[in-house]
Order: sequence, then structure tokens, then C-alpha cells
Amino acid sequence: MQDEIQDGSHVFIFLDAKRNWLRKVVAGEEFHSNKGIIKFDDLIGKAYGIRIESHSGIVFQIHRPSPTDIQIAMGRNTQIIYPKDAGTILIEAGIGAGARVVESGTGSGALTGILARAVGPTGHVYTYEVREDMYNGAKKNLEKYGLTENITMHNQDILEGIKEEKLDAVVLDLATPWELTNEVHRVLRPSRYIASYSPTIEQTMKTCKALGEGGKWGMIKTLEVLEREIMVRENKTRPTTWMVAHTGYITFARTMIGEGK
Amino acid sequence: MQDEIQDGSHVFIFLDAKRNWLRKVVAGEEFHSNKGIIKFDDLIGKAYGIRIESHSGIVFQIHRPSPTDIQIAMGRNTQIIYPKDAGTILIEAGIGAGARVVESGTGSGALTGILARAVGPTGHVYTYEVREDMYNGAKKNLEKYGLTENITMHNQDILEGIKEEKLDAVVLDLATPWELTNEVHRVLRPSRYIASYSPTIEQTMKTCKALGEGGKWGMIKTLEVLEREIMVRENKTRPTTWMVAHTGYITFARTMIGEGK
Amino acid sequence: MQDEIQDGSHVFIFLDAKRNWLRKVVAGEEFHSNKGIIKFDDLIGKAYGIRIESHSGIVFQIHRPSPTDIQIAMGRNTQIIYPKDAGTILIEAGIGAGARVVESGTGSGALTGILARAVGPTGHVYTYEVREDMYNGAKKNLEKYGLTENITMHNQDILEGIKEEKLDAVVLDLATPWELTNEVHRVLRPSRYIASYSPTIEQTMKTCKALGEGGKWGMIKTLEVLEREIMVRENKTRPTTWMVAHTGYITFARTMIGEGK
Amino acid sequence: MQDEIQDGSHVFIFLDAKRNWLRKVVAGEEFHSNKGIIKFDDLIGKAYGIRIESHSGIVFQIHRPSPTDIQIAMGRNTQIIYPKDAGTILIEAGIGAGARVVESGTGSGALTGILARAVGPTGHVYTYEVREDMYNGAKKNLEKYGLTENITMHNQDILEGIKEEKLDAVVLDLATPWELTNEVHRVLRPSRYIASYSPTIEQTMKTCKALGEGGKWGMIKTLEVLEREIMVRENKTRPTTWMVAHTGYITFARTMIGEGK
Repeated sequence: MQDEIQDGSHVFIFLDAKRNWLRKVVAGEEFHSNKGIIKFDDLIGKAYGIRIESHSGIVFQIHRPSPTDIQIAMGRNTQIIYPKDAGTILIEAGIGAGARVVESGTGSGALTGILARAVGPTGHVYTYEVREDMYNGAKKNLEKYGLTENITMHNQDILEGIKEEKLDAVVLDLATPWELTNEVHRVLRPSRYIASYSPTIEQTMKTCKALGEGGKWGMIKTLEVLEREIMVRENKTRPTTWMVAHTGYITFARTMIGEGK
Repeated sequence: MQDEIQDGSHVFIFLDAKRNWLRKVVAGEEFHSNKGIIKFDDLIGKAYGIRIESHSGIVFQIHRPSPTDIQIAMGRNTQIIYPKDAGTILIEAGIGAGARVVESGTGSGALTGILARAVGPTGHVYTYEVREDMYNGAKKNLEKYGLTENITMHNQDILEGIKEEKLDAVVLDLATPWELTNEVHRVLRPSRYIASYSPTIEQTMKTCKALGEGGKWGMIKTLEVLEREIMVRENKTRPTTWMVAHTGYITFARTMIGEGK
Repeated sequence: MQDEIQDGSHVFIFLDAKRNWLRKVVAGEEFHSNKGIIKFDDLIGKAYGIRIESHSGIVFQIHRPSPTDIQIAMGRNTQIIYPKDAGTILIEAGIGAGARVVESGTGSGALTGILARAVGPTGHVYTYEVREDMYNGAKKNLEKYGLTENITMHNQDILEGIKEEKLDAVVLDLATPWELTNEVHRVLRPSRYIASYSPTIEQTMKTCKALGEGGKWGMIKTLEVLEREIMVRENKTRPTTWMVAHTGYITFARTMIGEGK
Repeated sequence: MQDEIQDGSHVFIFLDAKRNWLRKVVAGEEFHSNKGIIKFDDLIGKAYGIRIESHSGIVFQIHRPSPTDIQIAMGRNTQIIYPKDAGTILIEAGIGAGARVVESGTGSGALTGILARAVGPTGHVYTYEVREDMYNGAKKNLEKYGLTENITMHNQDILEGIKEEKLDAVVLDLATPWELTNEVHRVLRPSRYIASYSPTIEQTMKTCKALGEGGKWGMIKTLEVLEREIMVRENKTRPTTWMVAHTGYITFARTMIGEGK
């Protein structure tokens, strides 16, 4: 985590909420956009947090990429779990430094990276992806941003079984999470968390039904999170006109020992 | 993080969303509620995640306290930053394993504990509280839950200055955060985060105005987060009738080097 | 619609959002509350819109009851369709002056009154209620507020059939609206509206499925409406802390002629 | 309100939520879209509510235009008050059959038409628009849809004064509504309504401050309305991904007689 931009560093080039780019700095090369060109040589040796003018006079901010910048960049062109939902998963499933977490599917690797940053070097993330193309894409993505030390990737259908045990949390973004609840229960430590993300209410209903059977899970609850941006401008303060109205429902539960209600 | 309840362990005793308690297990003593009595001796030696029947026949779930359970328990009777907002602060300000974070005010210590868990043993949380009674209460709270290793507490007005430097994030829940933005800028590493939480729009407007002056901050944005619980019950699925409509606005910005817009 | 309070007038006595009362003025009698007593004789001959001090010094506002005041007063102690949903029904189902509307169930009569005010003397509301006790209660309620001229009440199960025809809109708040969609189609004029209100998503799914069969309905859509109150106070402006998160889903569709998709 | 389409009728041609058109039927002419051509002669003599196939095989629904269809069509290319807000204004300001209402500015005439339909032939809408081009555009719009009988239009700055008196409601969508509150109070009957719509919180704060002075207004409250569409599809039920997060704040108050708080 150097504060100085170097050859090979990643930078987050920011103009506004819609126009921003995550790029690797390569000596001798340039960043091109329809708002002008920036020479990477002009960044090398500078601190993150500078402003730089493109050859056409537009001023860009140059930031150190945050986990969220990387998450969004990785997820471009695919469906990702939004930061608002990732934050809720971290906080509600108690995923912090040191936790051992299973995730499936890996998808673009966007959430994998967030989880890896959250659990840190004393924790570990095990991620399952059945599709080979997505597995390879995520692998490349995570390597690109140096997010590999505490991540183990499986190119495997998690429905066939989870290899790890004594886990602190299992995070699912699957088409049929209800088929996996018993297996998840088997590999979690007691009073630990499943977090299952589903776009539709029917998936959520089936998941909650599966979690409710046999008394294996306690404190089952389903949340949806709405995030609104407020444009704070002198005498023009108001929420943005459009917002994301729905991404998915997130169902949480904790493992119980024995049976009951 | 033992999975077995012992004399001196903390347990989260759960009946439903409104009736739940965080208690310390003491051999020979009992938990009393209007739903019946539980002998702590009946818990000692058992795993977290069991169910237990009170003497009056009500079944309670016994969980290992999560960071969020502790956050909410600490914050009882005071205004706390809700989990939904804490999750957003963690994810948007990139607060994960290893981060060095300043927080003020400490309040009940509820958010302090969440931050400490998030940054883990390789990170550190420095927290400022001007009121002596609150400082003492938070100290007791954090000691009670063993959350002291990576926390430094100051019984001091943060408006008089921040002692730490080269920080990764500063999280403010103050009446007048706009008085502190320059000082926060001084102590943050480049391209790092301020997160300022305020209940009112006037505070938010003043904070954004202060952040916008002199070009010291980039990527300024204000979010509000709404969380809705969905009651998933067969043929009765619907959101809960009531929800928290507003807690606060959270303004984020990143430190810039030099001047500009 | 006199602007002067008379013996026998209804008044809306307002202290704040939680403490307000709809009362009939009776010469020689008094209004009693734990905030003091008001003599009705002190109101008679005055204009609506006055303030009056109770014998214990609390100042009340005295308003002419609005349709919404009456709706809420009628619905006390029962589940009513909230103003936010009633407004959406009026606007989305095009219910204005002159419309002929069927409603079921009558319930407390609260929505019946709103519909009657909206359609006015040139329109008509026909309302069905199967439960005799509710029918009688609603009848009394509507008579009390003089809302009877353009309302016809049936103490009858609407599932047994609708007596009226060539209607402009049918508004349903029933447990099983999907059983009635064909009958509703029969009695509506072409390209007119059904509006069906249901608290649960399962009811809504069944209703949409029934509306989707046979091509009898077009422009099927389901809305939910969230209303937030903003407390605008100098330097303390913020949304209220709590809000109603969910009342019901409202499904709208228009009658089609012939078959198709 | 004939149920048969005739030469000169208006029709609402519907494909989906984004592709729909309000058109006047002219014998011998055609409707052209990139989804194919419809001959108006094929509609004349048919009932509203039919489906018709374009020459390229796409099936359109043909509806009788509702007040909301007209509102949205009038407002294309301008900022209009959305149906969700119009419904709230009708219900909260008690605007129904027979009401006498002043509105300003007229804008495209979209809300004027909604108000005119709501008050019906026994009520009246007086609308003020300072800009001549908008006044002429709205006039043309309202004439086109036959909405003129109970509407009086003024090409005049309402800040110079309101000509009508003894009104039931005044609906404002102005840049500086706070300059007009005393004048509005003068022309309203007692215990009647002002409804003021503003996009920004600063406008809302100034309006509430003006309404709060001198005790002229009671029951002041500010609402914002959020509307979410639920896509009800078998096994794919979920809210739409995007929604309108903000249109405006609506402040309501009722005229008081005398002074006080």
C-alpha cells in the first residue's frame, strides 16, 4: 500500500460518477478517453490523490483504487453484488478480519475481492465457480489486482459439495440456494452465518422454506437495501432523480445445534 | 473464539427481533426474563447454537454474539449508528483488515467495536470522546466484550486536534463535522477516506460545503441507506409494516493533493 | 360546505399528527381530552380554521374535516387503505368526477367515502360487504358524515356476482381477488380499470396470473407506494425516523376486447 | 365518453411501458412507428380495448386515453408532476368533484388536465402561466384533448396576484413559492389547502419557513412519495431494477383564521 504511483501500479481515474476508469500504469504508455489523453509517465513518482489535466484540458482525479472501485471495475458487463449489498453481507454475517468464508458463485470475482480484503491475511476466502469461462475470468481479474494470497478458487459446482469445514460464513449467489442449505449447515461452525442473495422473491421464498425445515437454522431474516444518493449543491440539494430500486433480497440465518423451532 | 459456552462467556439469548438479550454467563447464576428463567449452569459446556427451554416452557436460541449483536446491545438507550449505516461506512470507506482508523465521538462504543473487528489485529482504531461519562461508559462496554487490543481511547475533544497521522480513514459522528475537515485532511494518507454521519440535511450541507472548499477533497458524495425487512412466511410474504425511514446522511470524500476542483 | 361551524357540524380538532380527533359539535356539550376541555358552544358561529385554547391552556386547531381526515377517523381500529394508496388508486384508475365505481369490501367505509367524494354527484359508488357487522358499521359511519347520496351499499358477497354493469372502475380489497377477475371484466366498460389491493406478494402473484389468462386484460402492472414525511425545522430538517414500510401492493389492469396477449 | 373509436377520437396505442403513443384518429391516415404501421381506418367503429396487429406483425393494445395517459403525453419533453405526486396532491388537498382550484405554473398543462378531470363540471380550475410560449403550448394541448370547459387560463405572473377568491385549493409548482404564501392565504376559504411542489430541499425549507410565520397556516407537512413497480412474472417476481428516486417534495398546509402557533 504505497502512497506513490509507480510503474505497474493500478490507478482509479475519476471524472464523475459515470466516467471513471481503473487502469494499470505502464511506463511509456497513455490513457485514452474521449475527454483526452493522460501520459502514464506524468503519474509515475507522484502521490495518489493528485489532479491531472488531459491534453485537452479536462481535469481528472487520480485515486488509489479502493476495494469498491475494484469491485465495480471487475463487475463491469456482468451482474455483480452492489457495494450496498456487500456492506450489508459483511456487517450482518459478521465477516471481518480473520474470518474463514466460502463463496459461490465466484462470478467476476468482484465480491471475492471484497471478502478477501475484509478477512485480511489472517482469514481466508474459498470460492466456487462451476463455469470454466467465469472461473478463468475471475482468476485473471483477482491476479490483476493482487488479490490472491488469501483466496482459494475452485472450478467446481458447489452443489456437489463443499470441501472446507469449520467455516465462519458461507455467502451464496446461486440460482437454487435452497438445494445447498443442509450442506452449508454441515460445514459451518455453530452459530455462524449463511448469507444468500437472490434477485427474485420466489427464490427467496424457497430458500427461507428450506432454512425453516428441521430446526437447523435460527434467526432467519431477509433484508433488502435501498441506497439513495443526495446531490448536495448550494440551493439545489436533492436526491438524484434515478436510483437502483432493486438488486436482490439477502437472506441471513445462523446454524443451530439439534432440532426445534 | 471457542465454540463452547464457558463460565464467563457472553451469550446472545434470542426469542425474536424485539426480545433478545446479551448476557455474561456466570456459573451458579440465572437469566431472568418475563418469558422465564434459564440457569447459566445449563449452558456451560454446551455449544453455541443450542435451543434451551426456560422453566416456563419458552424456547430460546443461544447464539455466539456477533459484532452486530454487540453493537446493538452497547447502543441500547443511546443513539447508535445502525448496522445498515455501519456496513455502508465499512464498504464505501474501504475499512478492512489492517486499516488504521480514527473515530469520533466514541459514544457508547458501539461503532468502535464494529471498526475494531473490521480492522483486526493488524489494524487499529483510535477513538475520541469529549464527554467523560460517555468515555467511561464506552470503556466499560468495550472491556466487557474484550474489544480493547486494537483500540486506543482518548477522552478528548477531537476539535482540538487529532494525535495520529497517516490514517486510512476518519469516521465522524459529530454535531459540527465541518469544523474538522482540514484537520482530518492533514492526518489522512493521500486518496483516503473521511466518512461523516449526520442526522440532518443542514449539517450535511455544511459538511459538503467545507469539503468542497480549496480542492482538498475529491469524489465527495452523500448517501442515505434504507433497509427493509421482508417477512417471508408461506402465503403471507410481505415487507414489515414499519421501517426506520431515516437515521442519517453519510458523506464520503477522499483526500486530494494540491488544489483544484 | 359552509365555512362556519354550526350545531351539528363535524370538526377536526388538531394538536399534532398523533393527537387529533374528529367530533360532531353538539350545543351545550364538551370535547374532553387529556389536554383539556373545549366547550362546543365556543365553536358555534365561528369559522373553521380557528385556534382555541382548552381550559388547561393547550391550543388546538379547529379544521373543516377533509376527506382524508374522515377516511382516517373511520378507519381507526381497523385496517384501512392509506391515503397514499387511495391517491394512487384515484390517479392510476382514472377515478374522477362522474365515474361509476364498484368497491369491495366496504370495510369501515373509509375508502368508500373517498371514492364518493372523488366521483361527486354525477358519479356513483356501489360497495359490497359480506360481513353484516362491518356493513352496519360502515353504513353508520357514512351516514354520520353525510356521505350517502351517491353511494349504494350491498350487504352481499361480491364473489356471488356484481349487480351493476357498464362501470368505469372496480376497486378490490379482498382476500381472494383472483376469483373475481372474470366477473369484473364482464361488468366494466371497455378499456376501463380494475385496481386490486393486497397486502401479500402471494395474493398479488395469483391476481396477476388470473389477469394474465385469456388475454382479457391489458397494461397489467403492480405498484407499491412509499411515503416519507420530511420534518422541516430550522437546522433540524430530516425525514421522520419511522415510516410505514408496507401497506399493500396495488395491481392495475384495463379491460380488453377479444383475445390475445 | 363513447366506448367506440371514431374519426377524431384520441387513442392510446400501447406496446409496453416505454413504447406507447397518444394519437388522434384521422380517417384515411396511418400511425407509423418502428414497430410497424396501423391504419386508422382499421380502428374506426371498433371498441376501445382491442388489440391490433401492425403490418409487420407486432400486436398493439388500443386504449381509451386515461387522464394519466394524457398527463404523461402532454408532459413529454418537459418536467411534469408525476402521477404519484398528482395522486398525493388530490388526496391530501382534498381535491374532488366540485372543488375550485388555482394552479401555477400551467407548464405543459399536464397537471391542469388532471385537476380539471378531478373537479369535474361542478368545479373549476384557474391556471396561471407567466411564459407566453408555455401558455400557448398548454392551451393547444388542453384544447386537443377537449379539456377546456372547466378551465380558465391566465397568461400572467401569479406573483402579481390571484384574481379568484373563495378557493378550495391552490397548487403551486413555482421557483419561489414562499413569495406567494400570504396571497394564497387571502384567496383560500378557511381551513383549505395550499399544496406546493418543489424539487429541492432549500425551496422546501423556505416555503415551510414562510408558511410558519404569523400563524396563518396550520397542519403544515412535507411529503415525498416513492413509487416502485413490481414485475410479477412466474418465478421471476421482483421490483424493477430502476426507479425514480426523486421528483419533488410536496408541502401542504391549511388556512387558519387569526394568529397563533
